[in-house]
Amino acid sequence: MFRRQFHLKRVPKLYCHGIKQLDLVSSIPTTDLLVKLNFIHQPRSGLFNYLPMGLGVLDKLKGVIDESMTRANFDKVQLGLLSLLESWRTTGRYNNPELYKVRGAGGTKDDYVLLATAEEDMTQLIKLFAFASPKEYPVLVYQINDKFRDELRPRGGLLRGKEFVMKDGYSFDIDEPLAMKSYKTVTEAYHRIFKALKTPYVVADADTGDIGGSLSHEWHYLHPTGGDTVFTCTNCGNVSNVEKTLSYAEVTEESAKTTEVGVKYFITKDDKTLVCVYYSLQRQLQESFVALEVPDIDLSNRLSQEEILAIFSDKDQLIDKRIVRLMDARLNHRSPLPDFPVPFISRSLISTLFDVPLVSAEEGEICAVCDEGTLQPAKAIEIGHTFYLGDKYSSSLGLTIDSKSVQMGCYGIGLLRIVAALGEIHRDGKGLRWPRVTAPWDATLIDIRKNVGGDHYSENHDVVQLCKQLESNGIDYRLDDRSKYRLGSKVHHSNLVGIPLVIILGKRFPQYVEIETRYTTSMEHWKHLYEHQHTFHWEVEQDGDGNVHKHTVALEGAIQVIEALLEDM
Amino acid sequence: MFRRQFHLKRVPKLYCHGIKQLDLVSSIPTTDLLVKLNFIHQPRSGLFNYLPMGLGVLDKLKGVIDESMTRANFDKVQLGLLSLLESWRTTGRYNNPELYKVRGAGGTKDDYVLLATAEEDMTQLIKLFAFASPKEYPVLVYQINDKFRDELRPRGGLLRGKEFVMKDGYSFDIDEPLAMKSYKTVTEAYHRIFKALKTPYVVADADTGDIGGSLSHEWHYLHPTGGDTVFTCTNCGNVSNVEKTLSYAEVTEESAKTTEVGVKYFITKDDKTLVCVYYSLQRQLQESFVALEVPDIDLSNRLSQEEILAIFSDKDQLIDKRIVRLMDARLNHRSPLPDFPVPFISRSLISTLFDVPLVSAEEGEICAVCDEGTLQPAKAIEIGHTFYLGDKYSSSLGLTIDSKSVQMGCYGIGLLRIVAALGEIHRDGKGLRWPRVTAPWDATLIDIRKNVGGDHYSENHDVVQLCKQLESNGIDYRLDDRSKYRLGSKVHHSNLVGIPLVIILGKRFPQYVEIETRYTTSMEHWKHLYEHQHTFHWEVEQDGDGNVHKHTVALEGAIQVIEALLEDM
Repeated sequence: MFRRQFHLKRVPKLYCHGIKQLDLVSSIPTTDLLVKLNFIHQPRSGLFNYLPMGLGVLDKLKGVIDESMTRANFDKVQLGLLSLLESWRTTGRYNNPELYKVRGAGGTKDDYVLLATAEEDMTQLIKLFAFASPKEYPVLVYQINDKFRDELRPRGGLLRGKEFVMKDGYSFDIDEPLAMKSYKTVTEAYHRIFKALKTPYVVADADTGDIGGSLSHEWHYLHPTGGDTVFTCTNCGNVSNVEKTLSYAEVTEESAKTTEVGVKYFITKDDKTLVCVYYSLQRQLQESFVALEVPDIDLSNRLSQEEILAIFSDKDQLIDKRIVRLMDARLNHRSPLPDFPVPFISRSLISTLFDVPLVSAEEGEICAVCDEGTLQPAKAIEIGHTFYLGDKYSSSLGLTIDSKSVQMGCYGIGLLRIVAALGEIHRDGKGLRWPRVTAPWDATLIDIRKNVGGDHYSENHDVVQLCKQLESNGIDYRLDDRSKYRLGSKVHHSNLVGIPLVIILGKRFPQYVEIETRYTTSMEHWKHLYEHQHTFHWEVEQDGDGNVHKHTVALEGAIQVIEALLEDM
Repeated sequence: MFRRQFHLKRVPKLYCHGIKQLDLVSSIPTTDLLVKLNFIHQPRSGLFNYLPMGLGVLDKLKGVIDESMTRANFDKVQLGLLSLLESWRTTGRYNNPELYKVRGAGGTKDDYVLLATAEEDMTQLIKLFAFASPKEYPVLVYQINDKFRDELRPRGGLLRGKEFVMKDGYSFDIDEPLAMKSYKTVTEAYHRIFKALKTPYVVADADTGDIGGSLSHEWHYLHPTGGDTVFTCTNCGNVSNVEKTLSYAEVTEESAKTTEVGVKYFITKDDKTLVCVYYSLQRQLQESFVALEVPDIDLSNRLSQEEILAIFSDKDQLIDKRIVRLMDARLNHRSPLPDFPVPFISRSLISTLFDVPLVSAEEGEICAVCDEGTLQPAKAIEIGHTFYLGDKYSSSLGLTIDSKSVQMGCYGIGLLRIVAALGEIHRDGKGLRWPRVTAPWDATLIDIRKNVGGDHYSENHDVVQLCKQLESNGIDYRLDDRSKYRLGSKVHHSNLVGIPLVIILGKRFPQYVEIETRYTTSMEHWKHLYEHQHTFHWEVEQDGDGNVHKHTVALEGAIQVIEALLEDM
């Protein structure tokens, strides 16, 4: 930082321009609300321009993430957005239908891929550094920049854009135990980030099985508008994604007998074992759950159902083969199973497993983690993902240490998803309400006297002195000196866009300032200060519900009170 | 800003890794030096990844620009990089051969243009806001983000990339005089920015003529490696681009008579006037200079030389036509002109202008601005451009106020060009030397005691206390606690990458700290402090040339001294 010369920070020109009346009680989607309130502009579905306040929220969020990632000893880098084709071909991801291709002028073939995620490019970059000693690991890098994904039908506004802002981090370790340590470091960093946002979140456990040692967590805000579903156990508190929630059910004789049973056939990768999966046709089969029971199973759909059965149709060929029958936990031996599909040879070749969780859980079923509690579903907005990759990319791209593939992890945070979710979760009848760390600014300053605004404040003016004090105490203010609006409109605008505080320089200024709070999440800090300070005058006004939203404070105590109020927001 | 919990800031993992010996005296180009020193990575010519230190320089530079643009009341916005095709078609720029085209997966036609500059998109955005009252103007917006340009043969490293970081600002005014006021505001902002970088720069005046009221300045660093040429007048000090420098010459009878004279024919847009331009074939004709004399001239090359002359070949058709002959200032009436190309009719239809500046200036010729001084050429690196656009974009895209087209200006700064130029200009035999405001960090901290680094510093440790003090005083330090390097290597690395200060916590710490400076641009601040302070112990060591590069300061004075030294860097 260099020593800045002081200048007044004013509300941006694009702030609240054109906003006259806004029916916020109506259920206008949050992305549309952010557009109406001039945070963002949407030139077309899935594309966004950031206006001053939207950019402000995004920058504050970047600051929170930077702070926590740096503390976790991650190096910040930034890759170019034009990504070379070759490594995408090497890892087999080039044909992903969501990748944007770029070609130069007059070119007939594609020159680049627009960066969608950076496992390939980061692996290549770290490979270049050739860290040779085990002591030099872990190598931890992250970036925050635009990513691109060709969503054919972008919906959900900011939640699912064609161009979006993502934090993506990568860890490189010499073995799996150390990779798990890096994973834990990132988990701690994520907790710091999401706690700073003062919004309750859950971490959904995923893949508790042992498929190739992979480990994955999804970070969610629970909210009715969310597009994902997670289950929470009433007993052990375990949270998991719907695709990952293993559940049991109370099966009655009646329910078992009346269930319409479906079957799906799988084969193992060596073509030796037929897997018959029986489940209720009213429920959704989760193939990944089948894999937990039969790790060698082939989920690639390379063979049709008929082709699989054909392999087992010749009785003479069955001698070296096996058959496994899996019964979902919602069935039992009384359930009406379909006919057995292949010639029967010997009971010894067939094993049958009962009471296996094979379908998506439903509300009220039994948690398979603790075997006691019941599962409660909740809609969720996914905002982050941590993933242990193992050697998936390092082996194909040849990143090794001591001739062994480096063990990688990748860690994403969707910044626009957080902006959208925070907007959604905290909005109320008055408009948006940003947690202080992501508010476009901390406090709107309004001077009720006319004709002192513009460039008319002198260096020694009381307003300038107050602004200097705010700035030197790290309080990010904006002066609303627009001449065409009255006090009421200015307060209204500030509340509408969700600024935590309005500081009014009213009739009693410079002896006193008035501070109005947009909301109070807790009263911990200011109440404590209020009860213990005896050096300056401080009045509070309560509304009918006993909530305090207005403070009148002697100038000499203003900064202290503002800081305490912001700590609670 | 939210209240951050303190944590030690360490040098990044990618800092100086792999750097053993480096022959900096050799004339390795600066981009290659930045690659070798791990500031950037160049996956292919014209493409760049930013490593921690390169990103640090870039972020500091963004901060300087943000500060000054905000002070000039510009709103910061950020456009998406996927730009819709339509407006590029409307303004006729879609076929620019340097535009990258993007298509989605499976698409057969282009979907987007990668943002190259944003006159179209910004004009559309401001149009959307429909500022209706003249009082709401000027509207001033800027962004700092990636831009893309398909350079077929990218060269000059960071100076000319396919993907580059640019600050682009735009002003919108209701009339030309107010647009000029905005232009002046930006000029002042640019002076603040370039002064903060503590590197001498020049502003090249351009287009002093009155072609459609356009006005343009180029901002340059003068340096022998620059790809542009500017001329400076020894008398009036006027600086101008080679394409814009009007010059006169001393013409002797001999030189006039022996010059080999060339001629080029032009025609006015109404096809009524033939313009015969005579100039020395040894010199380069500047067609824009011709336009200064004949504003209605057609420079589009729509007709060949033969086609132009054919229009004037029929004597009977010449009655309503005119002929203008322009003689470059390096010719006179004795110069051997080519034959007159069309039938002669009447002297009254022909006018001849002598002594007109029509060719590129050369060293030592006479400045046409003051008519007195001589012109000195210098190589220059262009780092910024300010341009008055008039209604070029607002009229084609329909941005009006009171039924008149809005008057626009656009203002660019090439951030990577500045990084490259500062690297180039300030490097010396020891490595890079960053002006403090753009250094990756201000000071490298080295603790000579072994085995106290890592996570072993306690909250109360003297090193932690000093780091906290540095941070709270806005001094951006990094602790180099890498165990595999000794003090000498650490100091060497810090100097190599151009960090302004090294703070050594040596044998006399915590009573004293040693401060080594990478360079001193002036001694103004620290000398003044040195002469006036009497409260703490402070030793300086001079080298043979009397320069001070090392200070030993009592701990209680350290922050003050560090601040003073940084002020001079």
